[in-house]
Parts: sequence; C-alpha cells; structure tokens
Amino acid sequence: MRPFVFVNVAMSADGKISTAERRQVRISGDDDYSRVDRIKAESDAIMVGIGTVLSDNPSLTVKSPDLRAWRREAGKDEDPIRVVVDSRGRTPPDADILHRGAGKRIIAVSRAASPETLDVLRRYATVIVTGDETVDLSALLEELYRLGVRRLMVEGGGTLIWALMEKGLVDELQTFIGNIIIGGKDAPTPVDGTGSFRDEDFPRLALIEADRLDEGLLIRWRVKRA
Amino acid sequence: MRPFVFVNVAMSADGKISTAERRQVRISGDDDYSRVDRIKAESDAIMVGIGTVLSDNPSLTVKSPDLRAWRREAGKDEDPIRVVVDSRGRTPPDADILHRGAGKRIIAVSRAASPETLDVLRRYATVIVTGDETVDLSALLEELYRLGVRRLMVEGGGTLIWALMEKGLVDELQTFIGNIIIGGKDAPTPVDGTGSFRDEDFPRLALIEADRLDEGLLIRWRVKRA
Ligand SMILES: NC(=O)c1ccc[n+]([C@@H]2O[C@H](COP(=O)([O-])OP(=O)(O)OC[C@H]3O[C@@H](n4cnc5c(N)ncnc54)[C@H](OP(=O)(O)O)[C@@H]3O)[C@@H](O)[C@H]2O)c1
Ligand SMILES: NC(=O)c1ccc[n+]([C@@H]2O[C@H](COP(=O)([O-])OP(=O)(O)OC[C@H]3O[C@@H](n4cnc5c(N)ncnc54)[C@H](OP(=O)(O)O)[C@@H]3O)[C@@H](O)[C@H]2O)c1
Repeated sequence: MRPFVFVNVAMSADGKISTAERRQVRISGDDDYSRVDRIKAESDAIMVGIGTVLSDNPSLTVKSPDLRAWRREAGKDEDPIRVVVDSRGRTPPDADILHRGAGKRIIAVSRAASPETLDVLRRYATVIVTGDETVDLSALLEELYRLGVRRLMVEGGGTLIWALMEKGLVDELQTFIGNIIIGGKDAPTPVDGTGSFRDEDFPRLALIEADRLDEGLLIRWRVKRA
Repeated sequence: MRPFVFVNVAMSADGKISTAERRQVRISGDDDYSRVDRIKAESDAIMVGIGTVLSDNPSLTVKSPDLRAWRREAGKDEDPIRVVVDSRGRTPPDADILHRGAGKRIIAVSRAASPETLDVLRRYATVIVTGDETVDLSALLEELYRLGVRRLMVEGGGTLIWALMEKGLVDELQTFIGNIIIGGKDAPTPVDGTGSFRDEDFPRLALIEADRLDEGLLIRWRVKRA
C-alpha cells in the first residue's frame, strides 16, 4: 500500500521550472500561490529531491495562518511531514526545511550514506534507509503509508518526478503554466532524468480539467495505469 | 516591415517536442493534425531550422486535397513557401522539403556558406544570403515581406524559436499539449538555445485562449511587446 501521490509544478509556457542556471523564478501569481498553500495544507506529507533543497532551500511550510489553524484544530501538526529524497544525506544541517515550521521531517537515504552523516541528520529528522545506491522510492512510499501518510504532494524537481513517473508511482499531475518564456536547452523541466525513448513507455495521461488562473493556466492530469 | 510571425508546436505535458534521442513523436491526434494543416494552408510561408530538416526530414506540404484546391483557386501555389534557416547550407539536396509538393522553396544561409554549396542548393531553391556566421533573422523576415509573405508559420525547432523569441520577432505562440510524458533533461523543448537568465528578459505572454483538442489542450498566447 502506498499513499495517493500527486505532483504539483509551475512551469513556463515552454516547459521550464527554473532558468538554465537553476535560478528559482516566480512563474505563477497570487492565486496560484494560495492554491498551492491550500493543497499543501490538505496533504499529509510533501516531498522534494535533494537537488531542490540544495538549489532553492525551500521550507515547504503552510503559509496561511487560517490553514495552519485549520490543521491544528484537526489535531494535526501545522505543517505536513516534509520528506527529502537524498541518497547520500547531503541535506545541509542548516537547511530551512529542517528548521522552519512545525511537524515531522523525514530524510530518506540509501545504504550509500555514511553513518557519520546519518548521526548528524538524526538530530533534526527521522532517517529512513532504503535502497543500495539511490533511494528505493517504492519502499519509501510504503514506509510513508505505514507512518500514516495517505496523501503525498511532490514538489519536484524534475529528476525526482521522472524517477517516480518511470516506476508508475504518480497518480495525478497538477501543472500551472505561467505567461512567460524561460527558454534554454539546459533549463530544468518538470520531468527530467533520462526520459522515455519508446512510445510504448511514455506515461499516458487523461485531462481532468484546465482553467485560467492568474495570467496563466492550471491543468490537472490523471496518470493512467500502464 | 516584417510578416506576422506565429509559432506552432506540439509538446508533451512536460514540455518536450521529441525524445532525448531527437526521435519524432506523435504528440497530437487527428483533430490537431487537421488544425495544423489548415493554419499551414492559411500561411504564406512556413519556416523551420536546419536541425529539424536533418532530424525529421519534413516536407511541410498541405495535406488536405480540399485545402490544396482552395489555395489553387485563390491563385496561390498549393503549398506555402517553405523556408529553411541554414547558415552553412547543410540542407541535403535530396531533402523531402525540396522535392515534395508545389511552390517555392527558400534556403536562408549566412556568408559562412561556401559558394559550391550554394551552387548545388540553387538548383532546388531560392537562396537568400544574410548575416556573417548565422542567418540574420530580422533581415530574413524583411526580405520575406518584400517577397509578399504577410503571414509566416514557424514549425521549429527549439533553437530557431529561441533565436526568434530573443529578438522579439514572434507575435503569437500556439501550443498543443499532448496527454503524454516524454521526460528527459536532454529532450528538445519548444524554446531551447541559451534561454533567459534575468526575469526582466523573459518574453512575456498574454493568454488568448485554451481549449480541449483531441486528448490534450490547445493554447494560444500572444507575445507582448517589450
Ligand atoms: N517550478 C517548480 O515548481 C519547481 C519545484 C521544485 C524544484 N524546482 C527546480 O528544480 C531544480 C532541481 O531539480 P533537480 O532535478 O536538480 O533535483 P531533484 O529532483 O530535486 O533531486 C534529485 C536528486 O534526488 C536524489 N535521489 C535519491 N534517490 C533518487 C531516486 N531513486 N531517483 C531519483 N533521484 C533520487 C538524487 O541525488 P542523490 O543521488 O545525491 O540522492 C537526485 O539527483 C531546481 O532548479 C529547482 O528550482 C522547480
Ligand atoms: N513537436 C514539434 O512541434 C516539433 C516541430 C519541429 C521540430 N521538432 C523537433 O525539434 C528538434 C530539432 O530542433 P533543433 O533545435 O535541434 O533545430 P532547429 O531549431 O530546427 O534548427 C536550429 C539551427 O538553425 C540554424 N540557424 C541558422 N541561423 C540561426 C539563427 N540566427 N539562430 C538560430 N539558429 C540558426 C543553426 O544551425 P546552423 O548554424 O548550421 O545553420 C541551428 O543549429 C528535432 O528533435 C525535432 O523533432 C519538433
């Protein structure tokens, strides 16, 4: 058993999630910002890859005081569990994700992480060890389910999203498309990694809905089962 | 004076226009295929970069007999003028674009192309020489305007589209988003090249419309003037 997994990304009209230099860009507007805060508050956990922690240093907390109160009243921590997928335990001990906000943190590492590194990280987070070289994502999701996570939001980046997609571990994709062109053959995209080569291997989607939001468009896709 | 320039591309839900190996992929369905045929027939010329000619060998002809008849009755060639942007004149003399269909071909080269190459290409196409190393796109568009082109469709690829975008030479962007994930950090995207680094430099868009088409979505954006 694994949680319901949905990916949320903001991309430019040409499919980029940051610049070629990996500089974070404001792609969406205030309405999308509120929407993302709400779907975050409705999730039991929120996951990112170590690449995103190192380049953006996000805290991934719920921002709205109302939503924080709503979670508290429901007997939950004000922030969902924050999960970093980080084979070698490279999460900096002073990363915002470990210090801002309330609630549990999980760092998922592989057996390639050194014991010394894990000792440091255990001061700030629960460490889950799975997989030999990289994190075994299926096993991690099962472990999160056992810890009570039923709804998991994935924030990125493209390397982690590809790895989840490739293994059929994503149920839904929510894409905000902003009214800018970033361009750049080396700029990160919502789904990076190696990608599929054969048509038979492309993850296939079904369009749930598409609506104007801010100056762009919010698209929701269901991922079809292979 | 230059023609009205619009870009038409089909991309996967994660912003890819082919696989990382540059293999062409069927991203859209029959309705989009008909739509593209129609907007092609409504254009005076259709432009691609040499990268696209070398990887896809497209003919860029109008497919529908009705649309071909409609153009003929209007006193036009059955196919719009086909333009290849190709600094060094690498277009293979047996490329489909030079042999299939009716009407004029233009190969736009720079002064870096050798006279021998141009002698060969002149057997199949009108050669326009502009720019020192790469084709001077502004000068080329002015020349096309002088030749009577008022509406120019750009089919790709991402390198050419970026170059046009960067110079403010695009008026509209039509993007079909298909219901597949291609993935791959090296897969071509609608706008490649170097991309913008500073927020001030991002080409900005205004959403004209977005509608379901086939199993995906057709989005039309107007490019705002800087
Ligand atoms: N616009 C948006 O919505 C948005 C959201 C998030 C991120 N971003 C952007 O995305 C970029 C960062 O993305 P990224 O692709 O470089 O990094 P990422 O997806 O955040 O992290 C990828 C890393 O996760 C680790 N990992 C561990 N186990 C893995 C497994 N089984 N499969 C795959 N990866 C595994 C790998 O590093 P180790 O081997 O060292 O563990 C891998 O390099 C930044 O530029 C950021 O701004 C944008
Ligand atoms: N899905 C779709 O809608 C769609 C449509 C078209 C293409 N594609 C895909 O796009 C890929 C090919 O795209 P690409 O980016 O490699 O090539 P491209 O954009 O078709 O061609 C780029 C080339 O044009 C030449 N060029 C000449 N003057 C230029 C200038 N001023 N600025 C920029 N380029 C100039 C350059 O080569 P020289 O210096 O040698 O002249 C440059 O490498 C293929 O994988 C194809 O399948 C997809």
